[in-house]
Amino acid sequence: MADTGAFVRAPLGVQERITADGSSPWPVEAGRYRLVVARACPWANRTVIVRRLLGLEDAFSMGIAGPLHDERSWRFHNDPGNTDPVLGIEYLGEAYRAADPDYSAGITVPAMVEVASGKVVSNDFANMTLDFSTQWTAFHRDGAPDLYPQPLRAEIDEVAEGIYHDVNNGVYKCGFATTQEAYDKAYAALFSRLDLLADRLATRRYLVGDTITEADVRLWVTLVRFDAVYHGHFKCNRQKLSEMPVLWAYARDLFQTPGFGDTIDFAQIKQHYYGVHHQVNPSGVVPLGPDLRNWLDPHDRAELGGRPFGDGTPPGPVREGERVPPVS
Amino acid sequence: MADTGAFVRAPLGVQERITADGSSPWPVEAGRYRLVVARACPWANRTVIVRRLLGLEDAFSMGIAGPLHDERSWRFHNDPGNTDPVLGIEYLGEAYRAADPDYSAGITVPAMVEVASGKVVSNDFANMTLDFSTQWTAFHRDGAPDLYPQPLRAEIDEVAEGIYHDVNNGVYKCGFATTQEAYDKAYAALFSRLDLLADRLATRRYLVGDTITEADVRLWVTLVRFDAVYHGHFKCNRQKLSEMPVLWAYARDLFQTPGFGDTIDFAQIKQHYYGVHHQVNPSGVVPLGPDLRNWLDPHDRAELGGRPFGDGTPPGPVREGERVPPVS
Repeated sequence: MADTGAFVRAPLGVQERITADGSSPWPVEAGRYRLVVARACPWANRTVIVRRLLGLEDAFSMGIAGPLHDERSWRFHNDPGNTDPVLGIEYLGEAYRAADPDYSAGITVPAMVEVASGKVVSNDFANMTLDFSTQWTAFHRDGAPDLYPQPLRAEIDEVAEGIYHDVNNGVYKCGFATTQEAYDKAYAALFSRLDLLADRLATRRYLVGDTITEADVRLWVTLVRFDAVYHGHFKCNRQKLSEMPVLWAYARDLFQTPGFGDTIDFAQIKQHYYGVHHQVNPSGVVPLGPDLRNWLDPHDRAELGGRPFGDGTPPGPVREGERVPPVS
Repeated sequence: MADTGAFVRAPLGVQERITADGSSPWPVEAGRYRLVVARACPWANRTVIVRRLLGLEDAFSMGIAGPLHDERSWRFHNDPGNTDPVLGIEYLGEAYRAADPDYSAGITVPAMVEVASGKVVSNDFANMTLDFSTQWTAFHRDGAPDLYPQPLRAEIDEVAEGIYHDVNNGVYKCGFATTQEAYDKAYAALFSRLDLLADRLATRRYLVGDTITEADVRLWVTLVRFDAVYHGHFKCNRQKLSEMPVLWAYARDLFQTPGFGDTIDFAQIKQHYYGVHHQVNPSGVVPLGPDLRNWLDPHDRAELGGRPFGDGTPPGPVREGERVPPVS
């Protein structure tokens, strides 16, 4: 925390990338890596969605940290024996220290871990999903959509930049502000940006082009958590998402699209935010509301046109062992 | 706090009453007492409303503690010199200790203070408004409504009993619970009771009889704070009040009735809850939302009939010095 009371996202250690062109020490290679995520985390949620949309399940497996931390951060408390079955570790921090015994930066998800060495090789959340789209092409499923089409990259990057600062990170700036001034500034930026995005989405089904792109993935992971945690816990309370008609219909549309809602475990999301941020919620009590079954309400966005998967096809069923409970 | 993590309202000291029949040492007498309230407090809000509906402004004056506490509890930080202009004290606790030098129970509003001695003579919030209706009759304005009509008292008491435990105090039980079990229980009781009350109010304009009574005053002071503070800060988040159509229209109807909305200062309400309960909101940051101008939306409850003031009339304009800012 800076003296202004504003939340500043901590710098990350590691930050390597996995590439297909030899530009990093870590080449794409099926079976070599394991993606570690948590259902709670929006940054990890990006990777869960994109891996599934592109059909990368056989290229790299997925380990799922539970929602609750102790002082050692992310841990596999939902796995048998509290241990990731492939990596054989209880705490994700073990994989960070395997990469660097003196590692002292954040223990973050998503993380790509080399299975044989047990080392984190990348936690570069900003590039990870883009690399899934552009570096892992040899392993994409038949019918995988193009989430980062060459002609639209500049526009996607520009839209994503505003979403990152004001929305993805903006909700954290609201919730972790320790001064009124820092909070007020973050709140204004958040809702101004959401208003702009709602204007944009009023007449078009997706953010860029007429298909689902990386931009939609990035906005959606924050929207889907909005009413469950950001509205109350992070004081993002001008309205609920369900009171913003365009964004709410847009978010429901994607929720009901294969690859999005089927990655969401609302119980884990709520457990994490309310249970881990003691500085915001000292009691650790998790609210029982709101009723989230409204995510399944009709959205009527199909009439705006658009081709969700472009020339591709929806992903098939979620793999055994990666399924989430139905919304209740 | 008991070991169960449930919130237990602290016993009160003082608790005398002011009566007309000689049954207490404190007789009703114009100009003898000053009512000390705070705009933030729902228990005090009852007395502000009833004093105004009955036209008791000339019978006893009103001092208004500010929304923020230090470790010495309620204080007159919004008054010039941080001092109540009539009692000449900075902290309400001074009036409690004038009554009892060893006073160690809660420093609570509402409190009736004898001006000459500076002593608190009553903080009995449960009976105070009933006493305004039944003991201070000699000082009621022309056209004062009967808020506690003899034939309806049993029904009013019964309705008010459920409202007290599950709603008025229920929101505090939700917000101050330190265990999940205690919270879950309070949440279930709160929303079950609100559902029952909504059923009751679906076909009748007021809770008991066809006019405003004490029962409405008691329910309303919690409803009016619901979206501003209880929904987020106290985790009462099954829905916002504005998402419960019957209760929301009922609450707006009363808000727009003279004597109710004109006692409400939403800014002070939010400052108090978010600024004083460090155990719930350590940062003290006050959320900017929600937009509360919707309290002025049409309510369409007049078509249910009912006679707000019965054979009486609405109160006149709010006295100079007792006005609140408009809703914004």
